[in-house]
Amino acid sequence: MNALDRLTSLFAQLPGIGKKSAGRLVYHILENDPSYAYTLAAELSGLHGAIRRCSVCGSFTETDPCPVCADPGRDRSIICVVERAQDVRVIDDSREFRGIFHVLGGLIAPLEGIGPGNLSIGRLLERIRGGEIRELILALNPTVEGDTTALYLQKLIQDMKASGKSSVEVTRLASGLPVGGDLEYADRLTLSRSFRGRVKL
Amino acid sequence: MNALDRLTSLFAQLPGIGKKSAGRLVYHILENDPSYAYTLAAELSGLHGAIRRCSVCGSFTETDPCPVCADPGRDRSIICVVERAQDVRVIDDSREFRGIFHVLGGLIAPLEGIGPGNLSIGRLLERIRGGEIRELILALNPTVEGDTTALYLQKLIQDMKASGKSSVEVTRLASGLPVGGDLEYADRLTLSRSFRGRVKL
Repeated sequence: MNALDRLTSLFAQLPGIGKKSAGRLVYHILENDPSYAYTLAAELSGLHGAIRRCSVCGSFTETDPCPVCADPGRDRSIICVVERAQDVRVIDDSREFRGIFHVLGGLIAPLEGIGPGNLSIGRLLERIRGGEIRELILALNPTVEGDTTALYLQKLIQDMKASGKSSVEVTRLASGLPVGGDLEYADRLTLSRSFRGRVKL
Repeated sequence: MNALDRLTSLFAQLPGIGKKSAGRLVYHILENDPSYAYTLAAELSGLHGAIRRCSVCGSFTETDPCPVCADPGRDRSIICVVERAQDVRVIDDSREFRGIFHVLGGLIAPLEGIGPGNLSIGRLLERIRGGEIRELILALNPTVEGDTTALYLQKLIQDMKASGKSSVEVTRLASGLPVGGDLEYADRLTLSRSFRGRVKL
């Protein structure tokens, strides 16, 4: 296998990039100035060294704690719980939320062998016990795994509340019709959720 | 801009990769073993050094002349003329053609300021004058630029023939309905070409 084919199959390992697109990328890089390839190579080599997990929330960061956890302007009484580090970026970019985050590192998926023990749930409970948390917003995908994980977390918090160890409120992002979507194309589950979660005008 | 954002905008410069997909790629790389990033970086650094243009046909290769030009089993009397180096790969992988290639390095596009002088047409004529070529298959895209370039080349060869300097035949890949396509969805131009190029059964 020559250099061209080796790079093509490396690119083809990335999500959403098939063998054909990978080839196109390699030819594009070859036809352009080598400086692009060198810069990309340098950034790739440095990536894992420069970026670590925030010891507080678990998101990717260059500084520890991450800029969000270190920001004094954030509301520390609301934690938004997400599945993966990139969800922090998506939510933060939307500017809809000014609290802090917690990255679970996955969702409970028994069929894939992922149980609560594989997620950073212990660390989340520590943060809740640590004090001032008022609300836990579960920003988990509206999928079977997201639902299972949400139920599991809700149960844990209920038990803590019953034994007087916490007074934190658990909420979850609304599920329903996407803005700009069309009723006609909504699946039954989404429609059913949008009915159950209907709001008074 | 931190390491994560820098790598994201580098990926976003590649064709077919938007800002969002670029972000997904970076997070995917971050969440995986650093060895992938290091291997990818090493291959990128070595790419331009390992791959050069074949001095005969102009395609990308590790050895000069390229494996196709060096292959004694190839029919050296037929040259397939293509726009870009990656077209050589596409045609060669199809195993429909056992001749040799010539990469023009682009198509005539006056509006973009690309004239015949920007393409490796002189080198092609040299190869034709050099001898044994019997047929020139123009495998250029059926676009305005492809048509213009095909006409230009055909005219050049006609002039060579008129002055007795060449006896090469010029052909072009058939244009028409794609296999598995639907008449209903064919555009007018494609339909018109498929009529003009109809074959006797």
